[in-house]
Amino acid sequence: MMDAVRARIRDVPDFPQKGIVFKDITPALSDPAIFREVIDAFIARWKGERIHKIVGIESRGFLFAAPLAYALGAGLTVARKPGKLPWQTIREVYALEYGENALELHVDAVGPGERVLVVDDVLATGGTADAVGRLVARQGAELVSFSFLVELSFLHGARRLGPERVHSLITY
Amino acid sequence: MMDAVRARIRDVPDFPQKGIVFKDITPALSDPAIFREVIDAFIARWKGERIHKIVGIESRGFLFAAPLAYALGAGLTVARKPGKLPWQTIREVYALEYGENALELHVDAVGPGERVLVVDDVLATGGTADAVGRLVARQGAELVSFSFLVELSFLHGARRLGPERVHSLITY
Repeated sequence: MMDAVRARIRDVPDFPQKGIVFKDITPALSDPAIFREVIDAFIARWKGERIHKIVGIESRGFLFAAPLAYALGAGLTVARKPGKLPWQTIREVYALEYGENALELHVDAVGPGERVLVVDDVLATGGTADAVGRLVARQGAELVSFSFLVELSFLHGARRLGPERVHSLITY
Repeated sequence: MMDAVRARIRDVPDFPQKGIVFKDITPALSDPAIFREVIDAFIARWKGERIHKIVGIESRGFLFAAPLAYALGAGLTVARKPGKLPWQTIREVYALEYGENALELHVDAVGPGERVLVVDDVLATGGTADAVGRLVARQGAELVSFSFLVELSFLHGARRLGPERVHSLITY
């Protein structure tokens, strides 16, 4: 399972900076059969789990969150970088290797009683996903899990998020 | 048709700058039935049209391009702002009201013989979509059409792109 998908994920050395090997998922999206296999695997994992809303993390997370929300009959919402969401927002800051960044959610994106799944392409250190988890919790919604296409296990993101709340299709 | 969708698109005055009324699509995404109606309308328009690849424009375009590609069995690719795509890219510049911006495509994103649909959330002046159309043409692929959730007709984007190549679900 997922071997064909794995074969279409491309290593790009020194991106976005020297010494980092970037997992380029675009060849996997680009091939219709592979893209279908990826989305079907997300659907198979979450079908029947009573998910009310899926949060896609800007911006590659949107590519998986949107088809999954459609297939599950869930609502779709987006966690975005500061200044991108037009309406009233809440914000959580997270640390980068140098400095910090933040993510925002509209205040009406999720609410009490809603079961929420957070979706992104890659789990690295877990900083961004953790920030989104805090945003979801602040709005009183229930975080069901985080779901990723790729997990870079050597960066221990699952430990940070809580392994029981982390699902990933492919692990390096 | 689309009245329920239209009712869930929120006007946000003075975003991203004074004097502009921003069409906030997030309430339409957030409601499962409305999101489904939107994606089903895209599918209904393009089913059977022999589309090989769908290009989503960063980043709200991803929200519609991805479920549409999945449903049509097409490949998915992304047009992104400079520096975001990790591999070899081509670039097209477009004018803004003040200054300019650019979009990039991976060189292997689309190719000769492929029929390509470009998808975004909103058609305004058409500058970004036109840049993506040029990127697609440079790679020797065939641009079938541009498809949008919302068209702001008073900005005459369809005139710029060629009205026969523009599809939109909702027009203001």
